[in-house]
Amino acid sequence: MGLLGSSVTLAILRSSRGIKAVGYSHRDQTRQKARKIGVADVIADDPAECVAQADVVILATPICTFETIFEQIAPELKDGAIITDVGSTKSMPHKWAANKLGKNVHYVGSHPIAGSEHSGLEFARDDLFSGSRCILTKNARTDSSAIETLKDFWKLVGCSVSVMTPAEHDKIFATVSHVPHITAAALVNASRDDHVKYSGKGFIDTTRVSSGPENVWSDILMTNPANIARGIDRVIKELTKFRDAITSDSQTKIEKLLQNARMKRAKLIEYKMRNKELI
Amino acid sequence: MGLLGSSVTLAILRSSRGIKAVGYSHRDQTRQKARKIGVADVIADDPAECVAQADVVILATPICTFETIFEQIAPELKDGAIITDVGSTKSMPHKWAANKLGKNVHYVGSHPIAGSEHSGLEFARDDLFSGSRCILTKNARTDSSAIETLKDFWKLVGCSVSVMTPAEHDKIFATVSHVPHITAAALVNASRDDHVKYSGKGFIDTTRVSSGPENVWSDILMTNPANIARGIDRVIKELTKFRDAITSDSQTKIEKLLQNARMKRAKLIEYKMRNKELI
Repeated sequence: MGLLGSSVTLAILRSSRGIKAVGYSHRDQTRQKARKIGVADVIADDPAECVAQADVVILATPICTFETIFEQIAPELKDGAIITDVGSTKSMPHKWAANKLGKNVHYVGSHPIAGSEHSGLEFARDDLFSGSRCILTKNARTDSSAIETLKDFWKLVGCSVSVMTPAEHDKIFATVSHVPHITAAALVNASRDDHVKYSGKGFIDTTRVSSGPENVWSDILMTNPANIARGIDRVIKELTKFRDAITSDSQTKIEKLLQNARMKRAKLIEYKMRNKELI
Repeated sequence: MGLLGSSVTLAILRSSRGIKAVGYSHRDQTRQKARKIGVADVIADDPAECVAQADVVILATPICTFETIFEQIAPELKDGAIITDVGSTKSMPHKWAANKLGKNVHYVGSHPIAGSEHSGLEFARDDLFSGSRCILTKNARTDSSAIETLKDFWKLVGCSVSVMTPAEHDKIFATVSHVPHITAAALVNASRDDHVKYSGKGFIDTTRVSSGPENVWSDILMTNPANIARGIDRVIKELTKFRDAITSDSQTKIEKLLQNARMKRAKLIEYKMRNKELI
């Protein structure tokens, strides 16, 4: 029942299509707060009670907890239940699901591209997913009707849905999310406190994502190491091109590198505007 | 009469303290547009006419044009005139001013920490400087009453003012602005078009500054090479720490690097909120 979990249940309540939303948190304090705010129809007191009658189970915990949770809930699940999650890497969750969940249930990965640098149910919103994209991940064994059900579900809460393999997903999101997160953190770590107080909006925006919770992000980085290492190498290569152009005083090279970035980003913004993904 | 120049004259018009604002652009089309929109009291048709009666002259062109402009306007300036600029590096402008401007006028560097990734007078705003910091730069020979006049001026248009040497300025802004700009551009250049279309708000924000105009930014990078090269090296070092921690599967190290960034940035945001520099 953090930012994402509570936003999922709030979005379900808002959709009012007769779906009963049951929430669970391992923290007693969070369960009490969730009941008080009313972020779900029911807040269960243990995971077994939470999942026992569920048609769809959505994990919204740090990724490295999934393996244990799969093992813990497996005996409680209904035949035909669909298990998914909202985590930012997908290869490891698919592996854990294959090993720990029974053949009587269906795992599909979900990654709604929504959230913020904040965490906790205080920041949950019933419209967090409106206008967002949600990636579903499947492998050769994934049940196709489970995919269709989850497509309908994420569309119901406002997402447009894409489907790909976990390997494709993890490659793409290393580039567009995990490495940018590391770059933001590296920029902050490379700067002195007495210098950053002079920063403008540029530094603030460039580093925003590094304010995200480290327990969630360390799990993301731990479960996608090869793609991230390659991504860091690519960024270092591009930084080195700038360094070389600047120290050799080559205006032509500097302008070309800057222009390439500006034009690529302009194309991206245009695409996002056309698809109404920027609000 | 671009984004910054036009915002300066609009801010002067708004302050209505009997200051006459005279603008000039070398582009005929820009002068016509500036007259039509009324961004200054007068739009002059040549630089000599623009500066002849000026008490304060503010250059708002790409930095590498300053040397030529100083040479061009020097014979036209009134005795005691104050010359400044709104450029993002300060050591080279101070050198050029010492070489090209007469002893009868005073140069002080100004760097208002305001602007955006947009350019052109269409984006000018009379409140662009409200709540911003403006850095004034001086060396041992800088006239102290000229500094006082410029302090008053930037405060009038809404800035809080700090004074430092050009060397200090260029060291600080390599860290908080020039290197983050390069990092943003490097992130974009390191990513594939068919991947970035899946990006969320994180990538968009982390790379925003790289949409800035390359002619303005190449001049900034060209005039601060040593500080920027050292800054890039620091960022590469921090990226390499992440790479090592991730490829050696060290959760403790990853969490520590992420936590360090999160806590440093939290301190920065707290400082900015306290000083009302974030709106």
